[in-house]
Amino acid sequence: MPAFRTVRGMRDFLPRDAERMRHVEQVSRELAHLYGYEEVITPVVESYDLLAAKAGEEIRERMYAFKDLGGRKVALRPEFTASVARLVATKMRNEPKPMRLFSEGSLYRYDEPQYGRFREFWQANYELFGSEKPEADAEILMLTNDLLTKLGLRNYRFKIGHMGILRGILSQEGLDEEQQNSIMHLLDKKRWEEALTVAQSAGASQNCLTTLEKVFETKGKDAFRVLKRAEESVQDYEKAVSAVENLREILELTGESGVKLELMIEAGFARGLEYYTGMVFEPYVPEIEMALSGGGRYDKLIQLFGGESIPAVGVAQGIDRIVLAMKKQKVPPEIARGKRVVVISIDKEFRAKAMELSSMLRNVGLSVEVEVMGRPVSKALSDADRRAVAYAVIVGPEELKEEKVVLRNMKKRQQRVVETKNLCKEILGSLS
Amino acid sequence: MPAFRTVRGMRDFLPRDAERMRHVEQVSRELAHLYGYEEVITPVVESYDLLAAKAGEEIRERMYAFKDLGGRKVALRPEFTASVARLVATKMRNEPKPMRLFSEGSLYRYDEPQYGRFREFWQANYELFGSEKPEADAEILMLTNDLLTKLGLRNYRFKIGHMGILRGILSQEGLDEEQQNSIMHLLDKKRWEEALTVAQSAGASQNCLTTLEKVFETKGKDAFRVLKRAEESVQDYEKAVSAVENLREILELTGESGVKLELMIEAGFARGLEYYTGMVFEPYVPEIEMALSGGGRYDKLIQLFGGESIPAVGVAQGIDRIVLAMKKQKVPPEIARGKRVVVISIDKEFRAKAMELSSMLRNVGLSVEVEVMGRPVSKALSDADRRAVAYAVIVGPEELKEEKVVLRNMKKRQQRVVETKNLCKEILGSLS
Repeated sequence: MPAFRTVRGMRDFLPRDAERMRHVEQVSRELAHLYGYEEVITPVVESYDLLAAKAGEEIRERMYAFKDLGGRKVALRPEFTASVARLVATKMRNEPKPMRLFSEGSLYRYDEPQYGRFREFWQANYELFGSEKPEADAEILMLTNDLLTKLGLRNYRFKIGHMGILRGILSQEGLDEEQQNSIMHLLDKKRWEEALTVAQSAGASQNCLTTLEKVFETKGKDAFRVLKRAEESVQDYEKAVSAVENLREILELTGESGVKLELMIEAGFARGLEYYTGMVFEPYVPEIEMALSGGGRYDKLIQLFGGESIPAVGVAQGIDRIVLAMKKQKVPPEIARGKRVVVISIDKEFRAKAMELSSMLRNVGLSVEVEVMGRPVSKALSDADRRAVAYAVIVGPEELKEEKVVLRNMKKRQQRVVETKNLCKEILGSLS
Repeated sequence: MPAFRTVRGMRDFLPRDAERMRHVEQVSRELAHLYGYEEVITPVVESYDLLAAKAGEEIRERMYAFKDLGGRKVALRPEFTASVARLVATKMRNEPKPMRLFSEGSLYRYDEPQYGRFREFWQANYELFGSEKPEADAEILMLTNDLLTKLGLRNYRFKIGHMGILRGILSQEGLDEEQQNSIMHLLDKKRWEEALTVAQSAGASQNCLTTLEKVFETKGKDAFRVLKRAEESVQDYEKAVSAVENLREILELTGESGVKLELMIEAGFARGLEYYTGMVFEPYVPEIEMALSGGGRYDKLIQLFGGESIPAVGVAQGIDRIVLAMKKQKVPPEIARGKRVVVISIDKEFRAKAMELSSMLRNVGLSVEVEVMGRPVSKALSDADRRAVAYAVIVGPEELKEEKVVLRNMKKRQQRVVETKNLCKEILGSLS
């Protein structure tokens, strides 16, 4: 039989990388708790119609879609928001607002595999439903900043914009949602010229085209100066002006509450998902080209899933992207939880005693591997040595007669006889 | 647009249930650490051929199989072992043995949905590679017992058998592996009569059929008495006798190492997966009919995936089944981690201050929700009351002038003015 491999675009995480993934997950979950977000778990397999409803053309085409054995058209979720919106519109529709929800797990998109981009990836997703206030937007920004800081990342910068700027211009020009979406799609791909051509053929005025061109060029790190320029550029479009004001208010709030975000304002910034209506953002580190996370406001989504109109703002943190950034920035992995102990019996007869002592040591929180290979003590010890085990407990007949065992400090290569009833204390004492 | 639903056989976990799921996951992961199992993460989507290779007829037919957009025949994993075996046979083939691996996540089978059985389910999977010794089998039993005990389950019992008993008889009778597999498949479904008919038509002797009938009847809670009966029943079949002896040794070791397992020996017990070669077991609680976990020895599997011959023993703990059992046995959920605090500003002007104080409180580990609805204080307080929040911090202009805020104990309905610099201490002190 030939050696099997992972399917193209899928990957394995061996222990060292898996530990990093689980660490980021765990910190994300703790952060959800600190901010009052409650976790929900939704299925990986959802109805195709649900996932396609507002996913944006590009994602729709790249879904893992198939028919299940019952003939239902289903797909693997490419993002969490559609599933969470389904919950909010149905089973959780009577929950009081604000409602803060957290979800975490794997997602699937048939993208071309490349550096940092895989067909299976992981996100930690935070969504705040019920508030249209800038405090809610600011909370999502703060939370994202907190996560990246807690994980030890440095020099990250938030690319930030507002969907209301472009949509405000286009809707005042009379372009319908579908036309707007195809323009947004092109802008997301940085295909500015094509976007302008589409706008023109959809009937946009010359003033509109000039304004759009100005908007595309309005970007920079000095947030409030860029926002002022943006406001001037879009002055003929009332809704676009409101959008700029909204973004300014969000950023002012964030700054005043003591959070120092490094920003890159882009007035023409459009995110790939069609459902965004307000502020949108993506944090980046200099070392990798892809966004670590992506978030924004989507006030009309819940309604589209059959619920009431509920304003919403959220963010999806890219767990594996963040792990990649941590590795690039050489953030050290978490210190392994405690040191390891091996327990070896010098004779088959004392195997059960070795297992019993292992249980005793685990009960005080030690990581214990019991010898299961039936190797001679010398061989088991040299294996323990190679794997940087801290202590070996050796169970032999002589010592056992007096309720004692041999405790060996692997690093110091010293050993002594200790009473089994003191074994936990001896090891914990030496480790502390 | 009609209200969307989950696809048949899939389900959502709302916050209370999601918390239980994550708790079982977390305890499983801690246990992996205590026993020295390192975590690996493998993809949900694997090649169909890999997953089908040794899955057993029943599972093979019920896989979520489809072609991806590149025309590859893939499937959603119905179990972890094939993926882990792939790793062990390829990327991890040079790792020293023993090798202990942990994996955790969701799995997919197109079974008929029923009480406790869904098409998406979760497992925590422990596998020990490299040892053929009974210590390894005993470790897997101990670990499973530890997990169920730690989670607070009671009155569970291990149904236990050994594949070598039936396979030993059938192979000595000259039946090939395929014939054996179809008989095992029938036995797993408790279709004893049909199994006998298949054995007979495959050429099994009258003595064999009589022996099989005896084996099917050999079961009971008094482990060593049942094993003695089993040994007598299979005395004409050497390999079957060895299998009984192996099982006895495993159970003796477990007992002598101080683990008291409630057992139900079944000499004719066959598990659904074709790859088992030795001891097999499933723990049950009286309250539900399904096994909480399933495990056993599978010494020939790695070889089948293109690796060397490596003995292996493992267990898959059914996370959602265990959660169901915990609910049935009314095991109380974990105490919510700490109490909640809300921070409310009495005027729009102090929103940023409220967010700043929230950050400060989160930094000392408190779960803090900041008011994002712009509601009057009275409304925000009555909402906090309804949701059993412990403390409200009210930020107003008068107090703020003196660097103070109002701290309200929601339960006692008492409030007082405290200095902001003492706020963390005040709240933590009251909660401890």
